[in-house]
Amino acid sequence: MMSLRVGVIGTGAIGRDHIRRLTSVVAGVEIVAVADADPELARRVAGEAGARVLPGDRLIGEPDVDAVLVCSWGATHADYVLAAIAAGKPVFCEKPLATTPDAALAIVDAEARRGKRLVQVGYMRRYDDAYRALKRELDGGVIGAPLMMHCAHRNASVPAFYRPDDMITDTAVHEIDMLRWLFGAEIVAVRVLRPRTGGHTGDLPEPMLLVLELDGGVLADVEISVNARYGYDIRGEILGESGTAALGEPGVVAVRSAGRLAVPIAGDWRERFGPAYDAELRDWAGTVRAGQPPGGPSCWDGYAATSVSAAALSSLRTGERVVVSLGDQPELYRRE
Amino acid sequence: MMSLRVGVIGTGAIGRDHIRRLTSVVAGVEIVAVADADPELARRVAGEAGARVLPGDRLIGEPDVDAVLVCSWGATHADYVLAAIAAGKPVFCEKPLATTPDAALAIVDAEARRGKRLVQVGYMRRYDDAYRALKRELDGGVIGAPLMMHCAHRNASVPAFYRPDDMITDTAVHEIDMLRWLFGAEIVAVRVLRPRTGGHTGDLPEPMLLVLELDGGVLADVEISVNARYGYDIRGEILGESGTAALGEPGVVAVRSAGRLAVPIAGDWRERFGPAYDAELRDWAGTVRAGQPPGGPSCWDGYAATSVSAAALSSLRTGERVVVSLGDQPELYRRE
Amino acid sequence: MMSLRVGVIGTGAIGRDHIRRLTSVVAGVEIVAVADADPELARRVAGEAGARVLPGDRLIGEPDVDAVLVCSWGATHADYVLAAIAAGKPVFCEKPLATTPDAALAIVDAEARRGKRLVQVGYMRRYDDAYRALKRELDGGVIGAPLMMHCAHRNASVPAFYRPDDMITDTAVHEIDMLRWLFGAEIVAVRVLRPRTGGHTGDLPEPMLLVLELDGGVLADVEISVNARYGYDIRGEILGESGTAALGEPGVVAVRSAGRLAVPIAGDWRERFGPAYDAELRDWAGTVRAGQPPGGPSCWDGYAATSVSAAALSSLRTGERVVVSLGDQPELYRRE
Amino acid sequence: MMSLRVGVIGTGAIGRDHIRRLTSVVAGVEIVAVADADPELARRVAGEAGARVLPGDRLIGEPDVDAVLVCSWGATHADYVLAAIAAGKPVFCEKPLATTPDAALAIVDAEARRGKRLVQVGYMRRYDDAYRALKRELDGGVIGAPLMMHCAHRNASVPAFYRPDDMITDTAVHEIDMLRWLFGAEIVAVRVLRPRTGGHTGDLPEPMLLVLELDGGVLADVEISVNARYGYDIRGEILGESGTAALGEPGVVAVRSAGRLAVPIAGDWRERFGPAYDAELRDWAGTVRAGQPPGGPSCWDGYAATSVSAAALSSLRTGERVVVSLGDQPELYRRE
Ligand SMILES: [Mg+2]
Ligand SMILES: [Mg+2]
Ligand SMILES: [Mg+2]
Ligand SMILES: [Mg+2]
Repeated sequence: MMSLRVGVIGTGAIGRDHIRRLTSVVAGVEIVAVADADPELARRVAGEAGARVLPGDRLIGEPDVDAVLVCSWGATHADYVLAAIAAGKPVFCEKPLATTPDAALAIVDAEARRGKRLVQVGYMRRYDDAYRALKRELDGGVIGAPLMMHCAHRNASVPAFYRPDDMITDTAVHEIDMLRWLFGAEIVAVRVLRPRTGGHTGDLPEPMLLVLELDGGVLADVEISVNARYGYDIRGEILGESGTAALGEPGVVAVRSAGRLAVPIAGDWRERFGPAYDAELRDWAGTVRAGQPPGGPSCWDGYAATSVSAAALSSLRTGERVVVSLGDQPELYRRE
Repeated sequence: MMSLRVGVIGTGAIGRDHIRRLTSVVAGVEIVAVADADPELARRVAGEAGARVLPGDRLIGEPDVDAVLVCSWGATHADYVLAAIAAGKPVFCEKPLATTPDAALAIVDAEARRGKRLVQVGYMRRYDDAYRALKRELDGGVIGAPLMMHCAHRNASVPAFYRPDDMITDTAVHEIDMLRWLFGAEIVAVRVLRPRTGGHTGDLPEPMLLVLELDGGVLADVEISVNARYGYDIRGEILGESGTAALGEPGVVAVRSAGRLAVPIAGDWRERFGPAYDAELRDWAGTVRAGQPPGGPSCWDGYAATSVSAAALSSLRTGERVVVSLGDQPELYRRE
Repeated sequence: MMSLRVGVIGTGAIGRDHIRRLTSVVAGVEIVAVADADPELARRVAGEAGARVLPGDRLIGEPDVDAVLVCSWGATHADYVLAAIAAGKPVFCEKPLATTPDAALAIVDAEARRGKRLVQVGYMRRYDDAYRALKRELDGGVIGAPLMMHCAHRNASVPAFYRPDDMITDTAVHEIDMLRWLFGAEIVAVRVLRPRTGGHTGDLPEPMLLVLELDGGVLADVEISVNARYGYDIRGEILGESGTAALGEPGVVAVRSAGRLAVPIAGDWRERFGPAYDAELRDWAGTVRAGQPPGGPSCWDGYAATSVSAAALSSLRTGERVVVSLGDQPELYRRE
Repeated sequence: MMSLRVGVIGTGAIGRDHIRRLTSVVAGVEIVAVADADPELARRVAGEAGARVLPGDRLIGEPDVDAVLVCSWGATHADYVLAAIAAGKPVFCEKPLATTPDAALAIVDAEARRGKRLVQVGYMRRYDDAYRALKRELDGGVIGAPLMMHCAHRNASVPAFYRPDDMITDTAVHEIDMLRWLFGAEIVAVRVLRPRTGGHTGDLPEPMLLVLELDGGVLADVEISVNARYGYDIRGEILGESGTAALGEPGVVAVRSAGRLAVPIAGDWRERFGPAYDAELRDWAGTVRAGQPPGGPSCWDGYAATSVSAAALSSLRTGERVVVSLGDQPELYRRE
C-alpha cells in the first residue's frame, strides 16, 4: 500500500505531538506539508519532518496532500474543515470542531450535502482501552440497563493561559463526548453546580459539578477539577439495574513502605491517554488509506459536544438547568 | 463496677438485635425490663433475657431501670424520649429521634432546659472504622480543606413494606448525619434529582441523587439505590484542595477464577456495619456506666437529620432546591 | 446462665490483654483469681479485676475456678495444662502448648487417657475473618484442589528480647498451625532457606523462607520477616487446580495525594488480629459455659505445631530438609 | 533517515507476529527477505510483505539486508546468529539464543572476538512498563536493599506440543532473565521443588517452584504453572530492607455484580505483554537505524539464561540444588 501523504495545519504543541505520532507510531504515513501562523516555527517543524511550508488554505488544495490534520487555534478549525470538505479530502480536526453550535452545524450541513463522511474529530477517549472495556461491560448486559453515571475529571494543574470557560470547552467536553458515545444517547439538559473553591485555584470556578441528563433518562454527575494537585485522574462508574461498571484504578506497581501500600497515579493526560492518541491516529490513518469512512467521532459528534458545552457555559453563569436541542440528525450520521 | 440495668422499649428485629448485643458483646449490662406493642412477643423476649414485661411508659419510671433503649415504631420515639428526659434517665433512641422537625425540636428544647445531655440517637456510622479513618485523614490535613464529597448508598434490596419516603427518612438519613459529622457543618440546602428508574424497582423513586450544600460551601452528591441487587455498598470520596480520601474497597479475600480477580461485597447492612452497631452500644453503655454524657449523636443531630430529611422529601416532590433552617443551637450542644 | 469464673495464670502483657477481653468484650465471664511469678504485678492486676492472688498450682484447684487461662512464660505451660487436665478443668493455653514435642505429646496422652477434650491452644488465626473466608473459598471448590500456597509473615519490628529461634517458635508457628488447619493435613517435611540479611536485623536470621510439604502433596513457601519496617503484613495465596484464593489487601481508607493512591497497612498484630483474639476467647468462654468441648486448636494441634517447629529449628541449623513424624493420632482428635 | 531493511528467518507464529509489528507499529522498517523451512509458507508471507524468499543462510549475506530477525525453530538459532556475527550484521534473535550453554558461549566468544555488540535476544520483559516501574522503585531506594523476591508465572493453558522441559526452557527462562536484569546479578544456584500435580496437567511436572540464589544473596522463589486455567498471570514482589515493591494488579475495568467486585485478568501473553513486544522491536530497530549497539538483552544474557535453564533442568530430574558457573564475562558486556 502507498504511503498516506498528510498536510498538518498548526504546529503548536499538539500539532508537533501528532506529527511525532504519525512518523513514529503509525506506519505508512508521510508528512508532506505544514502550515502555522508562526512561519519560523512552521519552517523548523517542516525541516525536521522533510515537509514543505504552505499557508493553511493552500495546503488543503495541494494535489500531493491526501489528507489534512487540523491542529491550529480552535477558532480557526471550522474554516479549515469546511475547506477540506469542499476539496473532498479526509480531515482529522482536533477538538473543538467549532467554537459555536452554529458554526459546527454549518460543517454538519456541508458534509451531509456532500453525502460522504470526511471528518473525524479528536475526542480520543473512544480509543482508550479502559473506556472501551467499560463500554463492552455495559453493552454486554451484566450490569443491566444503565441508570446513572458518576464521573470525575481531575487535572493536577493547568497552564497560566487556561481560562475559566476552558473548564467546560476544553476539559468537560471530553466527558460530554464520552457520555454520548458510551450510552449512545444525546444529552438533553445540563446544570452546573459550584461548591466553595480552594485557596489555590485563582479565579477558576473550580471544582464544578455538571449534572447531565441523557435522552432516555440516564443521569450523569461529573466533577471537574483542574488544580487537583495530587495527579491526573479520570474516574467513571456506571450504575446499572443489577450492578455497576467502573474504570479501573491505577496500579502498574505497588509499593509497601512507611505504613502504606501505594500505587502511582498518572501525572498528566499524556501519561494517561498517550496510547489512546496513538490508537486514534492509527485508526484514522488506517481508514483513510483503505478508502473507508472514519471510525471515530463525526461532525455530528463535534456539533453535539459544542452545543452541550454552550449550554453548560450558560448554566455556569446562571446556575439554572439549561435544555439542549440539536434538531434533526442528518441521515448520514444515523448508522452510528 | 455495678452492672447497668437497661429497659428496652420495642422488641422487633432491631430491638432484639440490640438486646443480643447488650448481652453478648457489651460487658456489664443487664436487661431488666422490656416493652412491646405485641405482648406475646414481649413475653417471649423477656423470658429469654430474664427480664420482666411492662408498658413502655411505666418501664421508664421503674427504679431499677438505669437507662432506656427505644427501638419501637418510629412515630412513638419522641414521646418515650421526652418521658426519659423528664425522668432524668439516659436514653438511647434508634433513629429517627422524631418523625417531624417540630417534634425533634421539642426534644432538643426539653433536654436543653434540663441542662444535661441524656439522649443518644442511633446513627452508628460515626462508630464505623472506615468512616473514622476517613475523618482522621480529613482532619489530618493531608488532602487540604474539603471542597466536595461523592457518596453512594446502595442496598441489594429492601423488604416489601419499604415505602418511597423511606429512601430518604430511613436510608439517606444515614448519609445526612454522616456528612454533618464528617465536616462539622450543617446542611443548608438540598435538592433531589431523579434519573430513569430500573424495571425492577416497583414504585420506589430510585435511584435518586441528593445534592446537599453544607454551611461553608462543601457540596455533596449522594446516590441512593435500594434495589442495587449486586450487594450492599457504601461509598464515599472527599475531594480536598490537594488530594482525596475515600472509604476503602471491600476485600477480605481475593479469588482469581475464570478470567477474573474477584472480591466479595457485603450482602447487607448487618455484615457491613455490624461492628459499628457493637461499638455504638459499647460506647453508650460505657459512658452511662461512667456517669458521663453520651459520646454519640445528640438530640440536636437527630433534629438536624430530621429537618434535612423533611427538606429532601419536599424536594423529591417538586424537584426544586429546598433551603434548611435550623435556628439557633442551644449552648448545651455547642461543644461538639 | 451463670457467669463463668476464670482463673488466670500469668499477668504479663498477653495475660492482661486477655483479662481485658474477658471483662469487656466477652459477656458472662468473671475473673476470680490470678497468679504470676511477680507477686507485685499479680496483686495490682487482681485489684483491678476484683480477684484474689494465688500461686498458679493452687489456683487450678480452687473450687470457684471453673476454668483456667494459661498465659505464663512458655516453659511453664505444660505443667499447668497437665494440672488442669488432672483437675478436670477446661484450660485455654496460650501458645506454645509446650516447648518440646515430647512435653506436648505427654499432654496429648494425658488428655486422651482422660477421654475428654479440655484444652484449647491459642492459635487465633483460625478465628480471623479473612482466613475463615479463605478457607470457605478453598472448601467451596471454586479454585479446585489445592496445589501450593505462598505465604508471608512480616512484623514491622520485634522487641529487644526477641531471640533468633523465636522466628520459628513464636512467629512461623502461626503459619504452621494455619496451614494444617486450612488444608486439613499434617506437615510431613520442612526446609528453611536463608537469603542475605539486611543491615538492620542484628543477629536475627532474617528473612527466612520455610518450604513446607503437607501430607497429600501441597507445597507451601512461607517468608518470615520480623524487621520489615513498613508495617505488619500477613499474606497468603492458595494455588488451586483452576484458580487461586488469597487473603485480601488492606484498605479501610484510600488516600490520593502527591502522585500516589495509598492505603494504610496495619502497624502490629494487635491491629491486624485484635478481632480474632476477641472471637477466640468469646468462642472458648461460650463452649465452656455451655459444657461443650472447645472449638479451637486442640492439644494435638499444639503437639503438631511444636513438632514442626522443632524440625524447622533443626533445618535452620543445617539447611537440610527435615522430616516430621507425629505418630498415631488418638481417637479423641479424629473428628476434627 | 533511510528505512531499515530487515530479513526475517522463520515465518511461524512468532515470526509473522514480529513482521506485523515491524510493518505496523514500528516506523521506518521494510521487510525485504524472508526464509522458512516451509517454502509454501515463506512464499505466502513474502507475498504479503512485498519481500522475496531466500534460504536462511543466503538471506543473511544479501547486500540489501541491513539486519536480521531470527524466529526459526530454537535449535537453529545459534547457527544463524553466528552467521550474522560473521557477516557483521545486527541480529535480533528470539529466545533461546542457543539450546545448550556451550552453543551460547560460542556465540558470546564470537561476538566478543568481533569486539562489537551485534546481537539482541528476545527477552521482552525488560520492555514491559510494569517491570520497568518495578525496577525504578527498586533502584530508587525506597524499599532499601533487596533481600528476596516472590514470583509466579501462570499460563491459562499451553498447546498440545508443549513438552515438560519447556516449563523451564520456554517459560521459567523469562523469569530467569528478569531476575538477572532486575537485580543486576548472576544466578549462582537453582533448585526445583515439586508439589502434587493437578488432575488436569497431563504429564507436565506442574506446578513447580524454582528457588534461585543470586550472587550477593538475594533469594527468589518462582512458581511456574502452565495450566492455571483462570488466566495468564505474572506476579512479582521484591522484599527490601524497609519495604516491598510489586507488580501491580490487573484492573482496566471493575465490575460489581452478583455479590462480587471483579476485574478482568489477561487471557494470554499476547494481551499481557503485547506492548512490551512492540517496545522491544521499536527499540531494537531504533538502535540499529542509529548505528548504536542494541539496548536489550545481550549474548551474555542469552548465555546466562541458557545456563541457568540447564541447571534447573538438572535439578528438576534430581531434586537437588545445582550450582551455576558462568566463567569470566568478556569485557564487551561489562558496561551493562
Ligand atoms: Mg483532547
Ligand atoms: Mg440505623
Ligand atoms: Mg499468638
Ligand atoms: Mg518470549
